[in-house]
Amino acid sequence: MGKLVEDFDAYRAKMNEKILGGGNKVMKRIYSLDTLTYQDGALSGKTKEMLGLVSSMVLRCDDCIKYHLGKCFEYGITTDEIFEIFSVANVVGGTIVIPHTRRALEYWEELNKGLK
Amino acid sequence: MGKLVEDFDAYRAKMNEKILGGGNKVMKRIYSLDTLTYQDGALSGKTKEMLGLVSSMVLRCDDCIKYHLGKCFEYGITTDEIFEIFSVANVVGGTIVIPHTRRALEYWEELNKGLK
Amino acid sequence: MGKLVEDFDAYRAKMNEKILGGGNKVMKRIYSLDTLTYQDGALSGKTKEMLGLVSSMVLRCDDCIKYHLGKCFEYGITTDEIFEIFSVANVVGGTIVIPHTRRALEYWEELNKGLK
Amino acid sequence: MGKLVEDFDAYRAKMNEKILGGGNKVMKRIYSLDTLTYQDGALSGKTKEMLGLVSSMVLRCDDCIKYHLGKCFEYGITTDEIFEIFSVANVVGGTIVIPHTRRALEYWEELNKGLK
Amino acid sequence: MGKLVEDFDAYRAKMNEKILGGGNKVMKRIYSLDTLTYQDGALSGKTKEMLGLVSSMVLRCDDCIKYHLGKCFEYGITTDEIFEIFSVANVVGGTIVIPHTRRALEYWEELNKGLK
Amino acid sequence: MGKLVEDFDAYRAKMNEKILGGGNKVMKRIYSLDTLTYQDGALSGKTKEMLGLVSSMVLRCDDCIKYHLGKCFEYGITTDEIFEIFSVANVVGGTIVIPHTRRALEYWEELNKGLK
Repeated sequence: MGKLVEDFDAYRAKMNEKILGGGNKVMKRIYSLDTLTYQDGALSGKTKEMLGLVSSMVLRCDDCIKYHLGKCFEYGITTDEIFEIFSVANVVGGTIVIPHTRRALEYWEELNKGLK
Repeated sequence: MGKLVEDFDAYRAKMNEKILGGGNKVMKRIYSLDTLTYQDGALSGKTKEMLGLVSSMVLRCDDCIKYHLGKCFEYGITTDEIFEIFSVANVVGGTIVIPHTRRALEYWEELNKGLK
Repeated sequence: MGKLVEDFDAYRAKMNEKILGGGNKVMKRIYSLDTLTYQDGALSGKTKEMLGLVSSMVLRCDDCIKYHLGKCFEYGITTDEIFEIFSVANVVGGTIVIPHTRRALEYWEELNKGLK
Repeated sequence: MGKLVEDFDAYRAKMNEKILGGGNKVMKRIYSLDTLTYQDGALSGKTKEMLGLVSSMVLRCDDCIKYHLGKCFEYGITTDEIFEIFSVANVVGGTIVIPHTRRALEYWEELNKGLK
Repeated sequence: MGKLVEDFDAYRAKMNEKILGGGNKVMKRIYSLDTLTYQDGALSGKTKEMLGLVSSMVLRCDDCIKYHLGKCFEYGITTDEIFEIFSVANVVGGTIVIPHTRRALEYWEELNKGLK
Repeated sequence: MGKLVEDFDAYRAKMNEKILGGGNKVMKRIYSLDTLTYQDGALSGKTKEMLGLVSSMVLRCDDCIKYHLGKCFEYGITTDEIFEIFSVANVVGGTIVIPHTRRALEYWEELNKGLK
């Protein structure tokens, strides 16, 4: 794992803890709903992570993209498959998605660092 | 097939023909690129149609949703699977996606009319 | 109440019932979370409906706008206050919000029909 | 001019009058600012209408698109030029812009009806 | 006040001055319209700042969020109220708003630094 | 040219090479389509770069804005003209575009550094 990944994970964990610690019931339920959404069901968790990734790309949220790339990595999704998700996102969402694709690929490479 | 489906297909076909007939090279290539994108590759065409559907939902484009629902129907995607795609779209995109989900479900039912 | 309101309510009720009847747990929780969100809390339900309305306007979702206008009407929010919400939405979101403001005002007038 | 154009203009005029009649100072200034924006300056009004059109397309606001198409028509912008604006919008904004392009072309044809 | 706040304010002030110094009449009016929008009227300035905050969150503009958080802080809005605004934004806008909520909470804490 | 420009160009070039090196046919075609789009046609390349800039601004993509500012700079577009593009983007897209305008102006100044 590269430094980009560590930094992202650390900041995300620290701030999520603060949000959940804030005592707001709606925010808490959003987090538990989010967890529920990506579990195996009629579609596999793996497929739903791909759906989450492409959604994050067309909505152009870099941190959401990083999060779902991390999950896709854990599921063993290949680089060729990731590129196909990139391609759908760029066709549907337009060239406005390209800068996010650059950062997504950089992050994907960091996730794969140290793998043989 | 219900009337919503027929009307959508007829208007879409008529206007696409006019766009392609306009002689603009970039527009033509967008259409052929769109076709290329959803063909079988590292990911199946079926999976990519699901990616196209969820993208259309979070971007809240009713006609794009209808188009991909039609393709998902042709691929034999089940209603339970469609609902799971709806759920990812509504969680990622928020309650702002609900009105589009209502229209999506109505269209999905029209696609299934006459099926036993 | 005018016909626009009746039609909106009827379609919304019919399709929400079908979505909730679909047996998808995530979709159900989104609906109950939505209800929870606008209840009195640190901010009043009335204030949160105004927040919901302005959010729907800048995200340009006509049906969401109608829904929150209906709630604002029930809370007795005045037309002058509604115009102020319109003004924030149009300044933050730009002239792209104007067409939605036209439809919002038309719907607001329908909500007020028959009132003296 | 076709019926689509007449209906759009009539509804737009009626509701704009109501918005301006509402006595909200911010809304009034938005309207006058909008008028100011598209006047000849360092860039011609014609160029700025093209900028307004492409912006409306990538933001996917059908009524805004119609409005700027009407202005482009008055400026004598050709159909080939309109198609080039469509092409930039579809490349930048993605295939999600296609359904709006279909409706834009239909409206453009209505604007040109009766012309020889 | 923490360093995040100082840096944001300094950059914002410097660049706003340059934009206003550019001599473009439309840009100047946008700035004065922006000021006018949030003044006390049918709704209080405080309520309108909350509307501005939630709008910035669902549109996912970090700098706009920071700006309105600063104003909300000046109005004495409580942390519990801020969390309720976060909750509306995350429900309406979806989990795509979560990363912006993390940064918003971090900035809110910086605004509160040194307060007792 | 200032450092912002160099850094942007270097990162963009490095990552574009990696994306194109990934062997995904759709991604490659998007890049070539993008090049084709901005060539002289019924509208000049210069006009289309202005269309690309305003589109990037209303869609609020900082990197896309930088890219098109660079192209506008090469075409000799003046600062007054750039401000007019800014004004259309801010009126159409709303005050949510202001933070992007601040960064756009900073980048524009960097592009002009060293010019007499």
